[in-house]
Amino acid sequence: MSNPLIITIGREFGSGGHEIGARVAKRLGIAFYDKELISLAAEKSGLSDEFIERHEQRSHGSFLAGLAASTTFTSGYFSPQNMPLSESIFISQAQVIRDLAEKESAVIVGRCADYILSGRENTINIFIFAPMEKRVQRVMEVYSLDEAEAMKKLSTSDKERGNHYFRYTDRKWGKAQNYDLCINSALLGLDKTADMIVDLAAIEARD
Amino acid sequence: MSNPLIITIGREFGSGGHEIGARVAKRLGIAFYDKELISLAAEKSGLSDEFIERHEQRSHGSFLAGLAASTTFTSGYFSPQNMPLSESIFISQAQVIRDLAEKESAVIVGRCADYILSGRENTINIFIFAPMEKRVQRVMEVYSLDEAEAMKKLSTSDKERGNHYFRYTDRKWGKAQNYDLCINSALLGLDKTADMIVDLAAIEARD
Repeated sequence: MSNPLIITIGREFGSGGHEIGARVAKRLGIAFYDKELISLAAEKSGLSDEFIERHEQRSHGSFLAGLAASTTFTSGYFSPQNMPLSESIFISQAQVIRDLAEKESAVIVGRCADYILSGRENTINIFIFAPMEKRVQRVMEVYSLDEAEAMKKLSTSDKERGNHYFRYTDRKWGKAQNYDLCINSALLGLDKTADMIVDLAAIEARD
Repeated sequence: MSNPLIITIGREFGSGGHEIGARVAKRLGIAFYDKELISLAAEKSGLSDEFIERHEQRSHGSFLAGLAASTTFTSGYFSPQNMPLSESIFISQAQVIRDLAEKESAVIVGRCADYILSGRENTINIFIFAPMEKRVQRVMEVYSLDEAEAMKKLSTSDKERGNHYFRYTDRKWGKAQNYDLCINSALLGLDKTADMIVDLAAIEARD
């Protein structure tokens, strides 16, 4: 295949999806983007990294309603600058993702990349999840939280990620049919789950 | 691990899930159950194979409401014999599935086996799906149907399987988090998807 390989990874918070993505990228020797996309989108939009990080997944209401408002109340000129900020951030990130998919093979974590690259060849869309008790345990360890704090963080994150994904894609987050492969990371652990994705990419590349 | 390995396979109609399951069972040298479960449930319930096949996934309304009705209008004696038939079939099949999981390693296709065996060790729950255009193509070939007939069959089957699964498990059919692994069979094709599951079972068995 001629165009670069892109592996998108959607993931439940605490499932180890970021870590698995990083290992896959390292083993395949390709680029890895997660929060790095924030800086790239910041460059494009003129907003600060901190601002984007704070606002990118905390938008409410309907994207289309926001879009309608932004065009109704301006003089017909349509650009990220006259849209609600969350939409502006999404559009900047989407452009960054499409641009880099043209240039290099990469693993991209989150940011609705599966949807943004819909229909693109040589793209494998993956969703990583894990049972709640495993996620609580991981969040307690990684963020040094007690159980109640970890559960609260998980519950907030699940809602935010689900809402964000639905708002921009009109699809249900974590619905198997939206991906090529969905894996419970607790079944094999982070390392072997990464191996499985690397194997999958190798088979796909041979076809 | 001491108890037999059970691989359950939920699958969209036309995704090749039955065929993949059969290949996995063959390669692992373990038993394979799909429609075979109908005959076993028939023996247990005293109903005919044909009757079970016709009724097992065509029930409507709520399982619990049906159950309530069946106990309200009988003298308090509770057994498959005085339940609505669809519930009786489900309970017979569930018992058959639990019994065989005690005795031998197997691949079990459909019949909410993932839910029936919830919490059991050495069980891998898989969901197989495929994009609509691939499923239409497969159903046209396998059942010698034209495109419109294939699409109608798929639409009816999706609704029936989704309703049946929800009715007996209170879970959403095809929600990634209900399984260990969900695979788009169109990504690798039937044979390599089967390989992937065999590899997964091998890794899981070594742990």
